[in-house]
Amino acid sequence: MNSGEFRRRGKEMVDFVADYLEGIEGRQVYPDVEPGYLRPLIPASAPEEPDTFEDILNDVEKIIMPGAASPACTELETVMMDWLGKMLKLPEAFLAGQVGEGGGVIQGSASEATLMALLAARTKVVRRLQAASPGLTQGAIMEKLVAYSSDQAHSSVERAGLIGGVKLKAIPSDGKFAMRASALQEVLERDKAEGLIPFFVVATLGTTSCCSFDNLLEVGPICNKEDMWLHIDAAYAGSSFICPEFRHLLNGVEFADSFNFNPHKWLLVNFDCSAMWVKKRTDLIGAFKLDPVYLKHSHMDSGLITDYRHWQLPLGRRFRSLKMWFVFRMYGVKGLQAYIRKHVRLAHEFERLVRQDPRFEICAEVTLGLVCFRLKGSNKLNEDLLERINSAKKIHLVPCHLRDKFVLRFAICSRTVELTHVQWSWEHISQLTTDLLRAERD
Amino acid sequence: MNSGEFRRRGKEMVDFVADYLEGIEGRQVYPDVEPGYLRPLIPASAPEEPDTFEDILNDVEKIIMPGAASPACTELETVMMDWLGKMLKLPEAFLAGQVGEGGGVIQGSASEATLMALLAARTKVVRRLQAASPGLTQGAIMEKLVAYSSDQAHSSVERAGLIGGVKLKAIPSDGKFAMRASALQEVLERDKAEGLIPFFVVATLGTTSCCSFDNLLEVGPICNKEDMWLHIDAAYAGSSFICPEFRHLLNGVEFADSFNFNPHKWLLVNFDCSAMWVKKRTDLIGAFKLDPVYLKHSHMDSGLITDYRHWQLPLGRRFRSLKMWFVFRMYGVKGLQAYIRKHVRLAHEFERLVRQDPRFEICAEVTLGLVCFRLKGSNKLNEDLLERINSAKKIHLVPCHLRDKFVLRFAICSRTVELTHVQWSWEHISQLTTDLLRAERD
Repeated sequence: MNSGEFRRRGKEMVDFVADYLEGIEGRQVYPDVEPGYLRPLIPASAPEEPDTFEDILNDVEKIIMPGAASPACTELETVMMDWLGKMLKLPEAFLAGQVGEGGGVIQGSASEATLMALLAARTKVVRRLQAASPGLTQGAIMEKLVAYSSDQAHSSVERAGLIGGVKLKAIPSDGKFAMRASALQEVLERDKAEGLIPFFVVATLGTTSCCSFDNLLEVGPICNKEDMWLHIDAAYAGSSFICPEFRHLLNGVEFADSFNFNPHKWLLVNFDCSAMWVKKRTDLIGAFKLDPVYLKHSHMDSGLITDYRHWQLPLGRRFRSLKMWFVFRMYGVKGLQAYIRKHVRLAHEFERLVRQDPRFEICAEVTLGLVCFRLKGSNKLNEDLLERINSAKKIHLVPCHLRDKFVLRFAICSRTVELTHVQWSWEHISQLTTDLLRAERD
Repeated sequence: MNSGEFRRRGKEMVDFVADYLEGIEGRQVYPDVEPGYLRPLIPASAPEEPDTFEDILNDVEKIIMPGAASPACTELETVMMDWLGKMLKLPEAFLAGQVGEGGGVIQGSASEATLMALLAARTKVVRRLQAASPGLTQGAIMEKLVAYSSDQAHSSVERAGLIGGVKLKAIPSDGKFAMRASALQEVLERDKAEGLIPFFVVATLGTTSCCSFDNLLEVGPICNKEDMWLHIDAAYAGSSFICPEFRHLLNGVEFADSFNFNPHKWLLVNFDCSAMWVKKRTDLIGAFKLDPVYLKHSHMDSGLITDYRHWQLPLGRRFRSLKMWFVFRMYGVKGLQAYIRKHVRLAHEFERLVRQDPRFEICAEVTLGLVCFRLKGSNKLNEDLLERINSAKKIHLVPCHLRDKFVLRFAICSRTVELTHVQWSWEHISQLTTDLLRAERD
């Protein structure tokens, strides 16, 4: 949507809201619809080509308004998460469908998704061990629980461990910054020999530092064999899996219990919108309530009737699935794929420019929209370069450490980025580098 | 703002956004401002009388835009939380000021605020006990930790206990559904005698069921004496404390370590916006990180420089303080007080109507905007009445149980509610009651 159309549509929306408020006394306070009313009213998957804005707005009046905030808010979310899951070609087990045991939920952030997964896994293992040895207290079990992630995992994983009151161990990643079977297995055996109870693994697809990918096809089977919950954090990279050429990066998701990525990062949905799927919704729900009254209720919880307050930390919820519905329809799957591909292409263009300059080196494989690079030379030199780049305030780079190297990160992330921006950025960096090296010599 | 002005201002805002996006390449990617730039630019407290919309929008361009999303997002939040704290006449210790040890943060929900407080309290007590007995493991301590709330507390308190992996005990409330010293003290002594470690108390001001108030002036000193963290959950009632005539309900807040209420519930700020204050920010921050590098950073954390990601569960943040800034200025403190008072007046009007009808009884003291009432007679009769009311879909009531009684709740909560709505609702309920009683007789 260009600026002119945004002005027109935005003003129509203002009138839509005002009209609604002016006429609100004529509306019923409670909807007439029955549970499951919404799914038959909309397609089973996202459109390939864009829909018109008129069509979408008409559907709001026709499909959402009769279902008011509730149950429309819940039902649209379930269906949108199915749409998105299908776009990623997630295994069927993660979808809600009509009566599925799995399903998706919108969380506020990947941090919350990881925490929810860890809490669900914790409850599950405590319950399992207590069933086997009724004398065991929760405290005695928790003291021995241990979770794992790669040493490249996001800090929110460590935080989830602190909140959940369990140990979290970092598995040394390999030369490509990936968690591999051998390293995990080694720590696992040692921990088991010491009487610890491994219960939870977070695999990262697209790490924050350098967009590396843990080896799911190796790690997944170990998790299944050892009865550990496998959670996949693909916060950034997940959006790319809607493109067939990147989908292989998600191979092994079939071994996971839960999967999460942030459409607010790279799928044009405004912040916040973090998409999480689980294979067994009862595991997630069970993390918070164990009493019989509750279980009776959760028994009803299926693709048809979902009570999302048990799927998340807060009680209240915003109507975030509307954002997904609008974006998926206004772009169509093809439009979203084109957006991802453009970013990846531009990242490779930047990579090409860096590689042509013998002063620089590329520090990690460029797979998606992130390029890790540095000046050949000391960390100090690269810190100085970053200082010059960020002080100029024309572009902004966030650095990282890869092993003992200080590394610059060029991330393609603006909705409106074009080739000229990338080219200009490189010339700018190149010039600042020349200035820096000259100053160093003088 | 009436509907006509909303249409005009809303469309101006659409143009504001479009202009911003069209001109974005001319803006710097990183702001020039220094930490603490914002506070001197805006008044130290909220205006008593409304500001004009023009003034507010001009300030956005003048004060927010130069600070971009960061640090403006953080700094406006700190100052808005100070404004709101002053509106409530919170003790100085809860405010950030220039160099304060306390301060406020916007959470997404009261559930998250309670959980954050519980986690902070848990970390604090674990650290204290480990300092005294270095051999003690976290697991051994956690197994003995026990938290308390009234039996009227919200279910999110129980949930926080489950997530935090600690026991939570419900203290029997008194005849007015309030937690009192004697009941708390009794459970406390018994638990200590059994070797448990009391560490956390949630006092509720304005319970969900009947808007009762725990006795802070009794409970607070016990918490301080026993070194238990006192968290106050005033999710609904908190907004009313901006009125001098209701401020006494908050007396005793000086004993608390943390305090929370939801401006999104009753202070005209759109969902979500849950306001939480702590006396010692280091307690909250310390809940997540214990290593030296981190502590070095947190040392800088004061009223001047705040890193809110350590104050909350998610990592990312929305710019929610803008909502507060707009609302506080567009209504002025007097406008917000008038809004609260109108709702309370209407609740008392409904109470008066109920009391005039000998078929009904009032079930709990009406203090703010909630009226708990029921037909004299069986629970079954009241369940039937509720069924008739909600099936008619003219108004919607959510019931509760008070002890063994099924009770109807009439809540004043719409922004546009008028006396006529309340009168009409009562006539409607009265008529449905007549129909019901006639049907029962036949």
